Amino acid sequence: MQQGDTISAIATAQGEGGIGIIRISGINAIGTADKVFRAASGRKLADYETQRAVFGHIVDVQGDVVDEAMVLLMRAPHSYTKEDVVELQCHGGLMPLRKTLALTWQAGARPAERGEFTKRAFLNGRLDLSQAQAVMDVISAKTERSLKMATGHLSGHFSEGIRAMRHTILGQIAHLEAAIDFPEDEVDDVVMVEVEQNVVDVRNKIQKLLKTAQTGRILKDGLMTAIVGKPNVGKSSLLNALLREERAIVTDIPGTTRDSIEEYANVGGVPLRIIDTAGIRATDDLVEQIGVDKARSYVNQASLVLALFDASRELTAEDEEIFSLIEGRDAIVLLNKSDLQPVLDENMLREKTAAKVLVISTVTEHGLDNLAEAIRQKVYDGGLDAGDEGAFVNDERQAEILRQADGHLAAALRTIEVQMGLDFISIDLRSAWEKLGELTGETVGEDIINEIFSKFCIGK
Amino acid sequence: MQQGDTISAIATAQGEGGIGIIRISGINAIGTADKVFRAASGRKLADYETQRAVFGHIVDVQGDVVDEAMVLLMRAPHSYTKEDVVELQCHGGLMPLRKTLALTWQAGARPAERGEFTKRAFLNGRLDLSQAQAVMDVISAKTERSLKMATGHLSGHFSEGIRAMRHTILGQIAHLEAAIDFPEDEVDDVVMVEVEQNVVDVRNKIQKLLKTAQTGRILKDGLMTAIVGKPNVGKSSLLNALLREERAIVTDIPGTTRDSIEEYANVGGVPLRIIDTAGIRATDDLVEQIGVDKARSYVNQASLVLALFDASRELTAEDEEIFSLIEGRDAIVLLNKSDLQPVLDENMLREKTAAKVLVISTVTEHGLDNLAEAIRQKVYDGGLDAGDEGAFVNDERQAEILRQADGHLAAALRTIEVQMGLDFISIDLRSAWEKLGELTGETVGEDIINEIFSKFCIGK
Repeated sequence: MQQGDTISAIATAQGEGGIGIIRISGINAIGTADKVFRAASGRKLADYETQRAVFGHIVDVQGDVVDEAMVLLMRAPHSYTKEDVVELQCHGGLMPLRKTLALTWQAGARPAERGEFTKRAFLNGRLDLSQAQAVMDVISAKTERSLKMATGHLSGHFSEGIRAMRHTILGQIAHLEAAIDFPEDEVDDVVMVEVEQNVVDVRNKIQKLLKTAQTGRILKDGLMTAIVGKPNVGKSSLLNALLREERAIVTDIPGTTRDSIEEYANVGGVPLRIIDTAGIRATDDLVEQIGVDKARSYVNQASLVLALFDASRELTAEDEEIFSLIEGRDAIVLLNKSDLQPVLDENMLREKTAAKVLVISTVTEHGLDNLAEAIRQKVYDGGLDAGDEGAFVNDERQAEILRQADGHLAAALRTIEVQMGLDFISIDLRSAWEKLGELTGETVGEDIINEIFSKFCIGK
Repeated sequence: MQQGDTISAIATAQGEGGIGIIRISGINAIGTADKVFRAASGRKLADYETQRAVFGHIVDVQGDVVDEAMVLLMRAPHSYTKEDVVELQCHGGLMPLRKTLALTWQAGARPAERGEFTKRAFLNGRLDLSQAQAVMDVISAKTERSLKMATGHLSGHFSEGIRAMRHTILGQIAHLEAAIDFPEDEVDDVVMVEVEQNVVDVRNKIQKLLKTAQTGRILKDGLMTAIVGKPNVGKSSLLNALLREERAIVTDIPGTTRDSIEEYANVGGVPLRIIDTAGIRATDDLVEQIGVDKARSYVNQASLVLALFDASRELTAEDEEIFSLIEGRDAIVLLNKSDLQPVLDENMLREKTAAKVLVISTVTEHGLDNLAEAIRQKVYDGGLDAGDEGAFVNDERQAEILRQADGHLAAALRTIEVQMGLDFISIDLRSAWEKLGELTGETVGEDIINEIFSKFCIGK
């Protein structure tokens, strides 16, 4: 195992916590750690075996104590990067972590780039590219289903499927090349039928994968959702009820700047990313205040519209505007306030819209289960199996690679059909095989790799 | 070592990071971890020795993988709490951490209370009370000097001083009680002189400690600082220059709510907590816009006022208002824009104010070193030694205990003076001895302990 130069970074989230970790990796990770850490035992880390936890103190160049620390030693290849790795577990405050990090730099490490630890794990063969990408998805997963998809990718479930396809394609190439190399043998029609059938099989698998792409992306990034309705119909109450859901994740996800705070609601395992233009609560009288044009632009940003109507009041002109607003959109109509004396019923709404209509009460929370199920069905449409998320495509680059690989396979089938030379078929198949290798990283250029890891956070 | 029931919590900061830790401590920590963790080796954690790192997966009750994890096993008493402790190092995202935490609860742990890990460390004798309190100070330290103070306390530097005082007092009590027990022996005047001298010595040490209290609190909590001056005098530029300082810590410290974001500037090692009432930038034309009354209330919140004047312009009526505003306040007068053609000089300002006057330029950053030194001198007044921060008092409760202990010692001296009975002197000394024990936690009630740890964060 070739070890890279020595890098270090804070590996835990920013902020204040009980514990914070500085991770050091590379050829001189242990030597670097030994310069900043003084074990209570008096021994050097270099004298310890791998996978040991050692208690002691972080000390500066004068030997003054900076913090207490528990240090974790992982020798190559028994580490995340497959290099020598030392984790310094300090107290989880900004000063002890920054000070300790600076000491590791003084001791010879350099600041790690974004995703550099995981990049090394990839380059050293601990993870393939799809698994490496999944690391960030695990970290930023919004619901259990999102997490399941990410851990499925991380554990190699998605990659295995890709590898199986590549293996099949390579088998067909071998058949064809044998026939090319030994032209004295007649090309057996049976062989060609078998090649064709196998290519069709792989194409079916790719098509099936591509069908998961939309759901995969929703699980990963959240479903952009707008809540509309006339004033006092219960939009804020609905939002609160969704956020309050037992398994809801109500979190502030700090973005690259502190300004962007997004709200995710976990509804039936689907992360709804509620569109919040300067506070959803401002939309309480959206149609009234900012006019139908702006409401339309708000709705246009959304992949799903939840349109609320008030069961206790007659339909108004504003309600009619809402109906026109959601026409042709992916919407669920919610007849709210089922707890009050009804004036409207769901059939009256069904006459007005093609969208699914559900009766709910944000007060009693009646009908919210049905809403969760309706959202789940929408997201898992096309008969996708819940439970199989680990094999979903969840990334536009991955989907595009699959489409291109499928294109090469389609070309191969056409080549077979018009009975062109075997080498032409072989070329198409090889293109498909190489393309699919870009998913696992076996046939991918350095620029793509750098781009992928540049989206990681520092310390990962 | 008696082990408590099994508790668990997320120990790293909230947010997204490469690594996040769930800490489990207590009688069944290892059994709990074995229910949620499947080692890649196939072995149980229970079979591993202490201080080992074990790679594997977090699994739910169905055996499905929730996340990859590196697990750190620390058997009692070789752990933070001196109980069995298992740290589950997962990926640092909200979903993997929350899901894993919930699994530990299903497996029999209960949610840890605020500061419960450190409380157990205290109750099990790993840390005394002053050291335990220092844990939070290390985490929330704002500058290197603050960190030095906190680590000094954490390593027991402060407690050692207190213990030495208690030891001295106990020695005097022994002298006196020997005399009480053997009344046939004449009370030797020499003994009384010695007791008196020792009590005076301890009082001197307490006085010296109390002198550090203000500086200690400033290093811990920051020096509330207001920046005032007429429009365009350079207040924002000064703030930016202070925040930009090479070793500056510009951080968003998330408070209990996301709304409160405080800005700390590290000036000469002193954390300045810039008073930010809805954005310091709004104060750019403070005097002009909101009137002298409001400016005065703003200045009144501050422990230090930085008053800016423009060297390139004549003094105006607004400047005169600033002079009256800072009268009697702890202020530093800054004559800014030394880079421009001067109209004012520092002597002209010295005629107007008793405050220290410094010439600076926020453009060239000339004079900012002097400002840092002036602030350092103000904070370390009374001849406190920089470098000795580890022995500073940094907490109002601690200061109050020292004052009360000193009161008991003063009473003992008066008792000696009026030649009351030896037992009266002994009672006063014992009160002082007990009082000082409240600092190290040797003589402190459960309610005080609970109150102290309730200020900790969960997971610490």
